[in-house]
Amino acid sequence: MFEKADVLLPKCWPVIRVDGRGFHRFSDSHGFKKPNDDRSLHLMTKAASKVMEDLKDVVLAYGQSDEYSFVLNRNTTLYNRRESKIVSTITSLFTSCFAFHWSEFFPTTPLQYPPAFDGRAVLYPTKRILRDYLCWRQADCHINNLYNTVFWALVQDAGMNKNDAQKRLKDTNAGGKNEILFSQFGVNYNTLPQLYRKGTVIIRPPPREPAPSGGAVERGDRDGTDEKVPVLLTLNEDIIRDNFWVSYPHVLEGEDE
Amino acid sequence: MFEKADVLLPKCWPVIRVDGRGFHRFSDSHGFKKPNDDRSLHLMTKAASKVMEDLKDVVLAYGQSDEYSFVLNRNTTLYNRRESKIVSTITSLFTSCFAFHWSEFFPTTPLQYPPAFDGRAVLYPTKRILRDYLCWRQADCHINNLYNTVFWALVQDAGMNKNDAQKRLKDTNAGGKNEILFSQFGVNYNTLPQLYRKGTVIIRPPPREPAPSGGAVERGDRDGTDEKVPVLLTLNEDIIRDNFWVSYPHVLEGEDE
Amino acid sequence: MFEKADVLLPKCWPVIRVDGRGFHRFSDSHGFKKPNDDRSLHLMTKAASKVMEDLKDVVLAYGQSDEYSFVLNRNTTLYNRRESKIVSTITSLFTSCFAFHWSEFFPTTPLQYPPAFDGRAVLYPTKRILRDYLCWRQADCHINNLYNTVFWALVQDAGMNKNDAQKRLKDTNAGGKNEILFSQFGVNYNTLPQLYRKGTVIIRPPPREPAPSGGAVERGDRDGTDEKVPVLLTLNEDIIRDNFWVSYPHVLEGEDE
Amino acid sequence: MFEKADVLLPKCWPVIRVDGRGFHRFSDSHGFKKPNDDRSLHLMTKAASKVMEDLKDVVLAYGQSDEYSFVLNRNTTLYNRRESKIVSTITSLFTSCFAFHWSEFFPTTPLQYPPAFDGRAVLYPTKRILRDYLCWRQADCHINNLYNTVFWALVQDAGMNKNDAQKRLKDTNAGGKNEILFSQFGVNYNTLPQLYRKGTVIIRPPPREPAPSGGAVERGDRDGTDEKVPVLLTLNEDIIRDNFWVSYPHVLEGEDE
Repeated sequence: MFEKADVLLPKCWPVIRVDGRGFHRFSDSHGFKKPNDDRSLHLMTKAASKVMEDLKDVVLAYGQSDEYSFVLNRNTTLYNRRESKIVSTITSLFTSCFAFHWSEFFPTTPLQYPPAFDGRAVLYPTKRILRDYLCWRQADCHINNLYNTVFWALVQDAGMNKNDAQKRLKDTNAGGKNEILFSQFGVNYNTLPQLYRKGTVIIRPPPREPAPSGGAVERGDRDGTDEKVPVLLTLNEDIIRDNFWVSYPHVLEGEDE
Repeated sequence: MFEKADVLLPKCWPVIRVDGRGFHRFSDSHGFKKPNDDRSLHLMTKAASKVMEDLKDVVLAYGQSDEYSFVLNRNTTLYNRRESKIVSTITSLFTSCFAFHWSEFFPTTPLQYPPAFDGRAVLYPTKRILRDYLCWRQADCHINNLYNTVFWALVQDAGMNKNDAQKRLKDTNAGGKNEILFSQFGVNYNTLPQLYRKGTVIIRPPPREPAPSGGAVERGDRDGTDEKVPVLLTLNEDIIRDNFWVSYPHVLEGEDE
Repeated sequence: MFEKADVLLPKCWPVIRVDGRGFHRFSDSHGFKKPNDDRSLHLMTKAASKVMEDLKDVVLAYGQSDEYSFVLNRNTTLYNRRESKIVSTITSLFTSCFAFHWSEFFPTTPLQYPPAFDGRAVLYPTKRILRDYLCWRQADCHINNLYNTVFWALVQDAGMNKNDAQKRLKDTNAGGKNEILFSQFGVNYNTLPQLYRKGTVIIRPPPREPAPSGGAVERGDRDGTDEKVPVLLTLNEDIIRDNFWVSYPHVLEGEDE
Repeated sequence: MFEKADVLLPKCWPVIRVDGRGFHRFSDSHGFKKPNDDRSLHLMTKAASKVMEDLKDVVLAYGQSDEYSFVLNRNTTLYNRRESKIVSTITSLFTSCFAFHWSEFFPTTPLQYPPAFDGRAVLYPTKRILRDYLCWRQADCHINNLYNTVFWALVQDAGMNKNDAQKRLKDTNAGGKNEILFSQFGVNYNTLPQLYRKGTVIIRPPPREPAPSGGAVERGDRDGTDEKVPVLLTLNEDIIRDNFWVSYPHVLEGEDE
């Protein structure tokens, strides 16, 4: 009786985002490589994949750094759309998978203490606004990664201390950072792995019959257990431009009615 | 902008309850002893203690079976009282501690798959209503434990199959169940461990100076790391009657204003 | 601090519906004609028009019987989209206009006691669902009006008492009711005024330049004060079929993004 | 389905406050006397009384200027505690009574246009916090009335223009304002009518048997229709200090449980 009703508005797309709690300290305690630690990124994606395997109404997950966003079908009836139940279950499941699969990705680094995540729900009324949200997260990935890439090059390769590196980058725009990378470190930012620059998007494969867009589907990295029927597609592609959505129209299928 | 404001009403006592997700299957998969598995109960309490050590505004935790309730101080400003953040963090942290400490309590039983919990927040405006909630959970513990104790005695000791045991207990009241236990199995229910009959309550020790109620404090089981300053008191006492609250007045200190 | 945040989800269409409180008694006390009282229906529409003149973000109002629904622009920032403020202001304003203009429509019937309305907000994420809502209200108008028309014909013209009339109509479908009207009272339901059968929809006139759909706009009843620039169009048309929406595309302008 | 559940948290005291919409303009249009117009204040109280006569779960109403707060019994089940329904109905009813009774208080001033109010709900978990709210409103009454009394004395009696009067009062504290009133206008603020300085509180009379606090009850102004059983007590007393609450213990009866 003292529990508030918290049903998510029907027809809107629910997005649940989980974020690492105190991951600055956590990454230090576990010797994460900077600016990107492949083990951690792949563990995050493993945990997210397990969430998607368990909860069939998640149509897409997008992750970068220590965060993952789960997009549920706009018509989902999962837990009768009760917000607390959905948010807490996804956050708990993600956390649990992260801890459970830790040693697969960090075989020589024992977990020092229990990692935690927080979660929140956001509701998007239309596909366009949902896509705006995903664009925002991928743009955020790019901005942070560019900054971190230059910052750690200055610190690790040029021997600058962190304060000086920070000052050096203050008031530098994207072009300036690319320039530093290229001129000072010989790095072309655009050739760095898409995993770092684009983050990771997980979707379900298109339905088999009939083949969508009349051709073979490029499936990218696979995260399935069965060669022939991958459970999930794990991609490091641009999701800002239309191309991704044209290639995988089944993900957000159905018109804005 | 699309995220709903969800600040918990000021001055009310927030209670966050976490519940095992699919724990029937989970307990089967991990060979839990019936009707009570000490290892699981102690692991639950370990995880709850870790939550309390981390989040200082939790003033009391009560657990039984696969659930734990965390009572926050009515004046807490944790995460600015944002419901999603509080619920998801506590649920995530509890889950993570459960997974992290698993092997301490189940040294010979590897975790088969990641356990998950859901969480929810409930708000109680006054101490009396908060205590009613805790009474309800402890009464629920008693009712379920009595049923399970007789049920599994019939199955394990009397060789009944589960369906027959269920039928035997249908329409039996508490007295009837006690009678079966005593006459058929020689068990006096009231002598079974309080851990099973009362569940577990975790509180912080009373402040040292001056000693509350003018005397030595009985501390029950301790869960602290320092012999002299226990961080937490772990008790298996009745919290329905006034006695507990008279003994530990600091737990819900302050008047209903 | 103790006031809940209640911002309406952005981009969704807010609909505020006001309903007469105890209007069965109110209509009896004021001698409303049955099944429809033109004075009351026109007073309702007058009050709704005044609400629309005052609050520019109301793009459409639909009324029937003792209810009126106000559709706000999906992008409205009225009162920063605070639900309580929007609902209470519209309900108050509607009530006040109803009382204020009473004597214009009921010149010989003094107001016996203060009329009241309740109000509520509903949020629709897409145009399609918003139109479904409006269809539902217009279908409701038709169903109730058909029932009431036959019921009062039986009572007023055939001299049946109300209980018998109710029994006569129980389990009668739409066709049956039309049949009674035609065979027993010589009334063709479809020739009754659209005001009764369709309710009333109020919109703003299409923008002048360029003329929408390339021609003169049929304006129906006018509720404006200036012959040349009507402030509002008051219509008794079908809003279930596409025709209305094709004729007045400006009302819900903008794509579902 | 698209309507949000909005049940008020049980056991908390709901307070609904209605506020005049654009009453600066409204008071100008209707020639309200400054700083206080008795007709308007009495009309507000008439409307509030009618709300209390209609809705029995309102235990107290407090009004000043163009606002009125309605305190509902903490255990009220009015409209199943649905917030929108309660707020909109009280706001509508208040507005309607204000318009309906207008001519009784303004016999020579016709209503120029329909007045409107907005409404909001606030929830208070304990009596103490509820009383803090009422203290705040009465303190607000005092502060505004003191300011307005001096301001209009400067304008009306000393012939100052409004800008100069405003500047004169800027940075003046309560003592300074009292001093101006006394030295310049010979007015002792504390002898002005309590109606202006304290606002108006409306309660129900104490239950007849047994007489509360063992004596005759001073009833102040009466608003009842029956001399012997007044329906409501209308008072202009201090509600900040304990005295009022000691005299009328039945108003907020029942312990904070």
